[in-house]
Amino acid sequence: MKIKMVKGGICAAKGVRAYGIKEGSKGLALIEGEGRAVGMFTSNNLKAAPVRYTKKQLETGRISAIIANSGSANSFTGERGMRNAERMAELASSCLGVEREEVAVASTGPIGVQLDMDLIERQLGEVVKGLTSGEGGSTAAAKAIMTTDTFLKEKAVCIDTGTDERVVLGGIAKGAGMIFPHLATATMLSFIYTDASLEEEVLGRSLKEAVDNSFNMVVVDGDMSTNDMVLLVSTGRSGKISEEDFKAGLTFVCQELAKLVAKDGEGATKFIEVSVKGAPSIADAREVARSILRSPLVKSALFGERPDLTCGRIIAAIGSSAIAGAVDPRRISISVKSDKEVLAVKNGEFMDLFGLARTIMKGKELFIDVDLGTGEEVEARAWGCDLTYDYVRINAGVH
Amino acid sequence: MKIKMVKGGICAAKGVRAYGIKEGSKGLALIEGEGRAVGMFTSNNLKAAPVRYTKKQLETGRISAIIANSGSANSFTGERGMRNAERMAELASSCLGVEREEVAVASTGPIGVQLDMDLIERQLGEVVKGLTSGEGGSTAAAKAIMTTDTFLKEKAVCIDTGTDERVVLGGIAKGAGMIFPHLATATMLSFIYTDASLEEEVLGRSLKEAVDNSFNMVVVDGDMSTNDMVLLVSTGRSGKISEEDFKAGLTFVCQELAKLVAKDGEGATKFIEVSVKGAPSIADAREVARSILRSPLVKSALFGERPDLTCGRIIAAIGSSAIAGAVDPRRISISVKSDKEVLAVKNGEFMDLFGLARTIMKGKELFIDVDLGTGEEVEARAWGCDLTYDYVRINAGVH
Repeated sequence: MKIKMVKGGICAAKGVRAYGIKEGSKGLALIEGEGRAVGMFTSNNLKAAPVRYTKKQLETGRISAIIANSGSANSFTGERGMRNAERMAELASSCLGVEREEVAVASTGPIGVQLDMDLIERQLGEVVKGLTSGEGGSTAAAKAIMTTDTFLKEKAVCIDTGTDERVVLGGIAKGAGMIFPHLATATMLSFIYTDASLEEEVLGRSLKEAVDNSFNMVVVDGDMSTNDMVLLVSTGRSGKISEEDFKAGLTFVCQELAKLVAKDGEGATKFIEVSVKGAPSIADAREVARSILRSPLVKSALFGERPDLTCGRIIAAIGSSAIAGAVDPRRISISVKSDKEVLAVKNGEFMDLFGLARTIMKGKELFIDVDLGTGEEVEARAWGCDLTYDYVRINAGVH
Repeated sequence: MKIKMVKGGICAAKGVRAYGIKEGSKGLALIEGEGRAVGMFTSNNLKAAPVRYTKKQLETGRISAIIANSGSANSFTGERGMRNAERMAELASSCLGVEREEVAVASTGPIGVQLDMDLIERQLGEVVKGLTSGEGGSTAAAKAIMTTDTFLKEKAVCIDTGTDERVVLGGIAKGAGMIFPHLATATMLSFIYTDASLEEEVLGRSLKEAVDNSFNMVVVDGDMSTNDMVLLVSTGRSGKISEEDFKAGLTFVCQELAKLVAKDGEGATKFIEVSVKGAPSIADAREVARSILRSPLVKSALFGERPDLTCGRIIAAIGSSAIAGAVDPRRISISVKSDKEVLAVKNGEFMDLFGLARTIMKGKELFIDVDLGTGEEVEARAWGCDLTYDYVRINAGVH
């Protein structure tokens, strides 16, 4: 089985048309593509209207279209908000001639702001005209849902299963604030299409596994925006593929998109990958990786390119995660890599952190390997970025 | 019962002498005062050597002296670190002629750096000479343990129980980074002395209650520095006091010190008090208050003086806390107060947030009242500050 990058984003999958427009901060994306569908949603207890709407909609097990706006999260907007989410589905349904019950709705933007339905209706008229299965369609849709994102995020792969069957998986995503657990304006949305034909249970299991190893490792798990949503639709226009091969392809696409989200972290100057090995279990490894990338102190030290502060704070973050007595400080090792690599902490002892280590920290892509030394063969990877003046500026609403 | 502020910090309590010196970033404080003692310690799993040492030491139930240094946390320093903590106790014990087993040891500063024992020994010689029961003694000790603190923290009260008995409670504290849960360089230390005579169990219960309502509400609970420590010593040199009165006095002193820590939050331009009412339980109220003040997005919006962004992100923080289905968004109200007060969210609806609200947000002390609307009569208060460019600068190690 080979995974090959291809162009076209979601439109690389057969049976998908897309388009979108963006006017200032307010954009609208429409994706047409019929098939079996599964989704994963924010675990925030105050879910936005579109999340509640689409979660219920997905009980049909099918999606014919996705309509998504930027400029308002339609969150904390009361009954009017829910009526507006329904109205978005209705509008898409009548434009495209698909069942209203098969239209998914997503929103991103500030909380507590009602949708401008007149604007959405007008934009929809234009977007419908632009729908295309060409690669420009996916790109336009990806652009339309950007908020504080500084670049658009799309990826597609072709999975060569070694037979005549070729299956394409394409996705778009938006999100630039997944740096911290308490998202509000910076929702993560991702829509993924495949032309493979797969059972609903296989789609569900594959999406869960892929998201656990990708979007959920951009430092977010239980604490999410009120609007986060990942949808996976299989149009079934191409051949069959084994569950194993499909999972590998889907995980690859989701990780590529997740890394783009981390790279575009609000105000980020560095992309950081943290790998944790030797934890008592994979769940522990994930928790430690995330808690390191959640720590504002670690992230500030990375911004300051200070290996000494970074390592000390990584130690504190490890200690504050829930692996009670299972970690022996004398067995912890940490290495830091950019163009070169240095062993910064070796079996619980700080090495020289003022020579090569300082040069390595100047890299724009840093890989931090933590070995907790239990000897267990587990590894988790998480992605994030540094904490910078610009993060504060952007989120202070100072433009 | 009346609580009256008095001068003198820890030295206001009878039977206490203190002093300290600070040279650059390295300081040493010594407190002499014999009595029953209890302590509370960081719940970080990687506890620094002085924390492990003092926790064990307190099994004697007594403290005769406290020796505390700034400039190194003596954390993640292996067996040599533990020997150095023991050595600090030995040095204080021989200088003062007290039992080594009754000396508590505390440290604050960067992780992974060994103590400079020659310096500590030299500084101790000078500090012993300066020991005094005058108010300058408390102040000197409080200064000696400062790290990124911008002002010293001490408070003392006299509790007038209405009889002839007067009891004094005095405390010092350091800590300027309790803004975020993953502390590393910015440990919180507090040493509190009282001349009241109290049983060990009463001291223990009182300290737990006071800390739960003060230091633990500076946005920190399970996630702490490797070095946090609060010690309470009762010299028994004054009269008796009821447990209730003592708890009230102790809670007052701890809250005053906790607020000073929040006010001195690294890089802070605003002091924020969050009060949460109407949660299903007091534990829920505490969790919500803390999760609001932990959110980098809420804190950035406070820095930007943006009531609209602040309220939206408070909603997301409420939703991401663990009060599952118990919160009805239509019952949430939020008011913001500085010199004036405005109802920003009323029963789930955003009010006008661009008039008076923007003026109120310019205040340097903000009080945010959140009512979750369950009708339960519980209230929790937490203290914190905004997230600023200076927080990033300080923690990036850029000086």
